[in-house]
Amino acid sequence: MTKGGDTRSSIVREALSLATSVGLEGVSLGVLASRLDLSKSGLFAHFKSKEALQIAVIDEARERFAERVVLPALAKPRGEPRVQALFENQLKWSENNGLGSGCIFMALVQEYDDRPGPLRDRVVDSQREWRDIIAKAVTLAAREGHFRKDTDAEQFAFEFVGLATSFQESHKLFRDKSAKMRAHTGFERLLASVRARRN
Amino acid sequence: MTKGGDTRSSIVREALSLATSVGLEGVSLGVLASRLDLSKSGLFAHFKSKEALQIAVIDEARERFAERVVLPALAKPRGEPRVQALFENQLKWSENNGLGSGCIFMALVQEYDDRPGPLRDRVVDSQREWRDIIAKAVTLAAREGHFRKDTDAEQFAFEFVGLATSFQESHKLFRDKSAKMRAHTGFERLLASVRARRN
Repeated sequence: MTKGGDTRSSIVREALSLATSVGLEGVSLGVLASRLDLSKSGLFAHFKSKEALQIAVIDEARERFAERVVLPALAKPRGEPRVQALFENQLKWSENNGLGSGCIFMALVQEYDDRPGPLRDRVVDSQREWRDIIAKAVTLAAREGHFRKDTDAEQFAFEFVGLATSFQESHKLFRDKSAKMRAHTGFERLLASVRARRN
Repeated sequence: MTKGGDTRSSIVREALSLATSVGLEGVSLGVLASRLDLSKSGLFAHFKSKEALQIAVIDEARERFAERVVLPALAKPRGEPRVQALFENQLKWSENNGLGSGCIFMALVQEYDDRPGPLRDRVVDSQREWRDIIAKAVTLAAREGHFRKDTDAEQFAFEFVGLATSFQESHKLFRDKSAKMRAHTGFERLLASVRARRN
């Protein structure tokens, strides 16, 4: 915490962790300052407003999601293995992403779908980007001959997101031990519906 | 607003509407009192605590969901028609339930999955009840011979909830005109996977 950059990072990390449990609107500069043993003016030296901090938190969450979910999947071979890795990594992220259990993006969707403004815009961007990443991996899997040529990649992404969200509800809200099995069963059915027939 | 019961109902209705947009934790007794032109002590005469009001709000939301989603579906014939009606009514509820757009339960899941206590317990109850209602309709559809005898009703409910949640994200967050078509396509595939084969 000696350099400005370190302090800034600590603030964002702490705010992200707080937002994961109480929501991004629930992040209070006062609480953060006291948790980090900073003065409120010390905190304001890094973020001129609560909104600036909230934007930094969403950006940090996107970076972590990219590192933990997207990039390891992109390292897999194109086609079904990559699509499967995206799904597995998303489930792991919901189970434990170093911020406590639960996917912060699912919480952000519910928190901001009703609140127009720059935060909502970032949430929309992040969720669209995620669906586009899934759809692109599906399109590549069709090109590789793993999935049927007429696979509707956006439809696949729509259902993928649904299964992941239902998993989070079962896992985190119900603490249901069968959540992962259910998610896999649903995903296997989704995959089976688009797999190319091999004669 | 002349009688106590009316005032109480008005408070709960207003709080439910507020919670639908800002979350149930965001419901402030001060804001509510001023919206309803009541004194804070007048409001406290009906609810001794914020938590008591929040519980009343969840109960009110459950009643409305029962009226608009569950009961009209139970009026349909047992079997696939009832299962389809549950799904259609859930989509309509997410589109417009008289509280503004969006399903308050999906927001409550995200808001309370991390907050142990009586509110979380009620959210768990309401979501379990909803999955049980779906699963029961599916089991009846299997008994009626519409769905295969070995249909996994809980798995069906898991995927049903996922499609409905993804619909809400597409409809409310992205304002995507194709959301309903996507939800129907996914649901049709889910139905096709469990329908009994007719020879």
